[in-house]
Amino acid sequence: MTVAISSSATSTGAAIKSGMAGTMRALVKHHSGTEMKIVSDRPVPTVGPRDVLIGVTHAGICGTDRHIWEWDAWASSRVPVGLTIGHEFVGTIVKVGSAVSRFAPGQRVSAEGHISPGTGYNARTGAAHIAEGMVILGVDRDGCFADFVCVPEDNVWPVHPQIPDHVAAVLDPLGNAVHTVMSANVSAKTVLVTGVGIIGLMAVTVAKAAGASRIFVTDVDARRLALATKLGAVEAFDARQPGWVDAVRASTHDGVDVLLEMSGAPSAIDAGFSALRPGGTAALLGIPSKPLTFDLTNHVIFKGATVLGINGRKMFETWYQMEALLLSGRLELDEIITHRLPMADFAKGFALMQSGEGIKIVLEMGAGKLPNG
Amino acid sequence: MTVAISSSATSTGAAIKSGMAGTMRALVKHHSGTEMKIVSDRPVPTVGPRDVLIGVTHAGICGTDRHIWEWDAWASSRVPVGLTIGHEFVGTIVKVGSAVSRFAPGQRVSAEGHISPGTGYNARTGAAHIAEGMVILGVDRDGCFADFVCVPEDNVWPVHPQIPDHVAAVLDPLGNAVHTVMSANVSAKTVLVTGVGIIGLMAVTVAKAAGASRIFVTDVDARRLALATKLGAVEAFDARQPGWVDAVRASTHDGVDVLLEMSGAPSAIDAGFSALRPGGTAALLGIPSKPLTFDLTNHVIFKGATVLGINGRKMFETWYQMEALLLSGRLELDEIITHRLPMADFAKGFALMQSGEGIKIVLEMGAGKLPNG
Amino acid sequence: MTVAISSSATSTGAAIKSGMAGTMRALVKHHSGTEMKIVSDRPVPTVGPRDVLIGVTHAGICGTDRHIWEWDAWASSRVPVGLTIGHEFVGTIVKVGSAVSRFAPGQRVSAEGHISPGTGYNARTGAAHIAEGMVILGVDRDGCFADFVCVPEDNVWPVHPQIPDHVAAVLDPLGNAVHTVMSANVSAKTVLVTGVGIIGLMAVTVAKAAGASRIFVTDVDARRLALATKLGAVEAFDARQPGWVDAVRASTHDGVDVLLEMSGAPSAIDAGFSALRPGGTAALLGIPSKPLTFDLTNHVIFKGATVLGINGRKMFETWYQMEALLLSGRLELDEIITHRLPMADFAKGFALMQSGEGIKIVLEMGAGKLPNG
Amino acid sequence: MTVAISSSATSTGAAIKSGMAGTMRALVKHHSGTEMKIVSDRPVPTVGPRDVLIGVTHAGICGTDRHIWEWDAWASSRVPVGLTIGHEFVGTIVKVGSAVSRFAPGQRVSAEGHISPGTGYNARTGAAHIAEGMVILGVDRDGCFADFVCVPEDNVWPVHPQIPDHVAAVLDPLGNAVHTVMSANVSAKTVLVTGVGIIGLMAVTVAKAAGASRIFVTDVDARRLALATKLGAVEAFDARQPGWVDAVRASTHDGVDVLLEMSGAPSAIDAGFSALRPGGTAALLGIPSKPLTFDLTNHVIFKGATVLGINGRKMFETWYQMEALLLSGRLELDEIITHRLPMADFAKGFALMQSGEGIKIVLEMGAGKLPNG
Repeated sequence: MTVAISSSATSTGAAIKSGMAGTMRALVKHHSGTEMKIVSDRPVPTVGPRDVLIGVTHAGICGTDRHIWEWDAWASSRVPVGLTIGHEFVGTIVKVGSAVSRFAPGQRVSAEGHISPGTGYNARTGAAHIAEGMVILGVDRDGCFADFVCVPEDNVWPVHPQIPDHVAAVLDPLGNAVHTVMSANVSAKTVLVTGVGIIGLMAVTVAKAAGASRIFVTDVDARRLALATKLGAVEAFDARQPGWVDAVRASTHDGVDVLLEMSGAPSAIDAGFSALRPGGTAALLGIPSKPLTFDLTNHVIFKGATVLGINGRKMFETWYQMEALLLSGRLELDEIITHRLPMADFAKGFALMQSGEGIKIVLEMGAGKLPNG
Repeated sequence: MTVAISSSATSTGAAIKSGMAGTMRALVKHHSGTEMKIVSDRPVPTVGPRDVLIGVTHAGICGTDRHIWEWDAWASSRVPVGLTIGHEFVGTIVKVGSAVSRFAPGQRVSAEGHISPGTGYNARTGAAHIAEGMVILGVDRDGCFADFVCVPEDNVWPVHPQIPDHVAAVLDPLGNAVHTVMSANVSAKTVLVTGVGIIGLMAVTVAKAAGASRIFVTDVDARRLALATKLGAVEAFDARQPGWVDAVRASTHDGVDVLLEMSGAPSAIDAGFSALRPGGTAALLGIPSKPLTFDLTNHVIFKGATVLGINGRKMFETWYQMEALLLSGRLELDEIITHRLPMADFAKGFALMQSGEGIKIVLEMGAGKLPNG
Repeated sequence: MTVAISSSATSTGAAIKSGMAGTMRALVKHHSGTEMKIVSDRPVPTVGPRDVLIGVTHAGICGTDRHIWEWDAWASSRVPVGLTIGHEFVGTIVKVGSAVSRFAPGQRVSAEGHISPGTGYNARTGAAHIAEGMVILGVDRDGCFADFVCVPEDNVWPVHPQIPDHVAAVLDPLGNAVHTVMSANVSAKTVLVTGVGIIGLMAVTVAKAAGASRIFVTDVDARRLALATKLGAVEAFDARQPGWVDAVRASTHDGVDVLLEMSGAPSAIDAGFSALRPGGTAALLGIPSKPLTFDLTNHVIFKGATVLGINGRKMFETWYQMEALLLSGRLELDEIITHRLPMADFAKGFALMQSGEGIKIVLEMGAGKLPNG
Repeated sequence: MTVAISSSATSTGAAIKSGMAGTMRALVKHHSGTEMKIVSDRPVPTVGPRDVLIGVTHAGICGTDRHIWEWDAWASSRVPVGLTIGHEFVGTIVKVGSAVSRFAPGQRVSAEGHISPGTGYNARTGAAHIAEGMVILGVDRDGCFADFVCVPEDNVWPVHPQIPDHVAAVLDPLGNAVHTVMSANVSAKTVLVTGVGIIGLMAVTVAKAAGASRIFVTDVDARRLALATKLGAVEAFDARQPGWVDAVRASTHDGVDVLLEMSGAPSAIDAGFSALRPGGTAALLGIPSKPLTFDLTNHVIFKGATVLGINGRKMFETWYQMEALLLSGRLELDEIITHRLPMADFAKGFALMQSGEGIKIVLEMGAGKLPNG
């Protein structure tokens, strides 16, 4: 695939020169509590022999980042204080390690945020995203809400020139949606998406582009239900409305062919399986916060259902599928990416997510405008 | 699925009453030579205990029917003189056998034309379409170009009320296209269709609806290439134009993910495989008239390709997929079905096919207007 | 496949003559309580046009039959009092209905006990075993613990002459094991079987014959663990022994490739998933008696696991796979079929199951020795 | 997986010390003609930052090496004169590059001989063996018939301590057999192997271990047919014997479920497809030397067959499957590895292959006994 240097890359020149010599801006988890703050004296990451240093031009705020912002139980148990946050981004390579052969400075790239040790069964058989010892950018090691981010060469993804920056910044969550949809094989099938948050909405447009015949959605947020309909759902149900499961079963072969579970809510999981036909496939991406009461007998065994646990994205089959779908011109992402803000307005971005007014927020990082540049 | 009686069913009343008692019109292969003719004194088929008798309202003319019309080597070696021809149709059930439990008079139905003995490995494992001993309607036994056609209950397909008659008449060839496309799993993949005759054109709209990312086509007929573009192909090449294989490889990952071979022409097969990427999938529906010279080493083995032979349609997985695609509203068939003619104009229909002016021709059979009705 | 009449068929002659004229012996659920009894005046079933009447020579006692014997909550809520019980059998066809074309009197046959209405998505796409409206022999309609049993032609399975009667009598449960193992695709994979009751033990010998590389088992019954080892398990763990999960993970790629869950016990399900590697496949046949607390997040989602609900057997792909495995000579069933008893000793058979002394018990039905013969 | 240092590793100490400083023995294609010769002054390969240098202890002679020995059309068009030959081996790591993190000196390892550039669709989606730009050890760059061989870290495979050296030396061709068998999914299926040379014989024992129900073979060499029977084939046919195709079809469901084509001979390919049942799968590894006349219509299209081109081995799924099969204890390789010779007797090894007396020949390389050591 041809890789072009986007125009956004040119503005990083000054930053590159100065930043690489010394320090940079970064959004860090600065204490054991809510919020984050920008620091300007973060050392630019050291580039190992197999690493690539990328000047970040655009970055997306993820639900995971919000958990870290809010410093909930999960975040405080996993994320080290002082870490640079963020794992969804696009930027321009500014430096490559001595043993790097596949990439060069100037290329516009994104990167897979699951970093695998490269050993063990899953790492060596195309399933590095679930490999033992895998660490996550912006969660376990310094992330991309900074002027520069450093990742192993194996994780770098060259971004096709036809893909605009604000979309290239969110390939990570889009990849979650693509991995879920493609694992469930929706072509010519009826699909139910339970939970249309960021990834659920992306799953609607992805499923439509990937050939789903009819898409149903449920949620409790009227605005998101309306947006799901705009993106291609044929029916959008308030999850609290009695009778929606029966309605779905009546208009299909006694249930949908495919369930895409995006909420993690026990009630949605239960209802979703009730709306799945015997012999159907459920792909589960939403993460229940704890063990739940589940009717394995009726929902899975008697039904002869197939259940797929979905985590991350396949490296790099999912990325190629995503590129193909983007190049098809059929994905509608512009209404999902509701806000683009300068990096300095990061707090506003988190507030928009918390209020529900924003869906996907992209920060314009502006590598090249370093305080010390 | 709810099955409704279409309005077209009502007009068959008179025919039913008279026809069942005696004789009917039928288009038969009346001699060992070209053409066919309508006879009006054909006995209405006897209905066995597991059979269903259907009053035919609309029927499609297939390429196979044209072979029989022209009485080529294949036709004269296989088709018995005196047979009623035709295997693509929709109609209304007028009578069911004594042991039939799943269908009733009045239902609007089509039928799978591959009739299996019901025994043997393939017949009992969902692959009856390639079962040993299988016979074909209108080729091996009396077909549907008649007022009435008789098929086993196991072959009957209830037609969804949202599917119009002229489409319901051509579910058989549409099923060939759907089976080819769905076997090759085109979702989020690049696709090349070599040969855009009737089924090739159907494959273009089916592949697009089923989620193909970008579709390329080749043919030697400019009009059909233009129509393929209208149906969703991003590029249409004259197969004789040098360099099209290189063009396809340059705009993909060194070749398309999926080849749908619809021509049966050795040169198209060879070029198609050259345009397939290493690790790609080729689904072959076009039938070469004799053994050909084939570069198995470079086209299949070194490339690690997967090649799928496609014959008929899966009973009834393909039919359900076809229904799902039709109900999605994304199939564009109206420009492929170029002509609808009264049964009496059958000769004009064959002439339109032979001249290339017509693509798919549907005969309006008008069960209910029997000469002896 | 050639079908021969086994020698056991010849002894049914007298029974056929008399039985068909009138009454027969049958083991029935005679009241709302424990136990069953033999009656001798049961009318021989009426043979519908698409039915086949079979003189039963051998029948297996299933765990389901024990539930009915013990008249537990499930049985009393589902099984009608007065029903003839039993669904595992082999016998000889004595009569075929007027519309039957594929079978003839004299053939040695077994039958699939899941009887499908033949309509609807699953029934028409090779998944009749989970079709809506499906009824089960010996549970919802009269079964095989009788001189004669009547089943639809579509359910009849011709038994290969190389398969002995006591094995042919238990193709139904063997089919459960084969369906589970083949769905999970065990070839060259490590396998854990949790719960080695009848079907779990069958799954051990089936998995070995189907190419599993190494098989681990757990149970709480020392005798069955020892038998599992004899059948091919490389390690057999007492499920209550601490540390077995760690032992399995240490000797594999951080867990087995495939979990075959055969117990239905929540603790076994939980431990089994803990012993499954990231990216592994779990096939669930054991039926939890009620909804359970399940760690969907860690066991399925984070792990990227595939979970398959298993119910019945595929019609008839599983039966063909079973025949192939039996003809390979690699299945070891003789130690699983611990007892063969005359029909009259049925109470002893149930007692042997209840005490754990017996595993699979086959009743020799002796069609041909009817009291009224 | 635990990796142990085999006892054979200890003897390489002296070689390591001297060899790494300077020169080594190597079997090279020294001129444009038949034969090869040992040179003793070959420079030890330079170790790049991501490379691993391995002291070779055992190496297998491949059919490809014989083509190079005989300097046939293929060899002379592809292999550069002066190259060190050989690509099947086991040895001990003696040095790792500066950026290598996953391996260390002292480990007993083999390596995948297909070296991928790491870029492009196939390289990044688990199909590096068919990636564009891939080069082959001992064909396109210096190979393993030497005291030391240098390969990229990504290609190194740690050998399980339970696998003996003479088997570890032939993991490359064994991997071809495993990839072919596992791609075709033989579990509980009938299999025909056409051509039982080295890889065909390996395929017989692999298919049996992987769960094939019954295996048939054809060849023209009586000794190899006898050996195939010993390894598990139920019937071995002289390919020239009339009627063997009918015999196979009569004892199966009108043909085998799976064809493994290992000969590359047009007549064997034609006969093999004739013996494949409708709906069956053919995996093709044997390489026809030029385009052949092939009945695509009857062998593939009408039959609804699936054809898989097989090339190399999957990196590293095939290697894990191979390890699992070896650890199952069911592969019988000792009769296929007919000779083990000192490196100095390489000419005898090639002669044994040419005469047909030898099947697989392993050279004991004896790193540690360098002429200049």
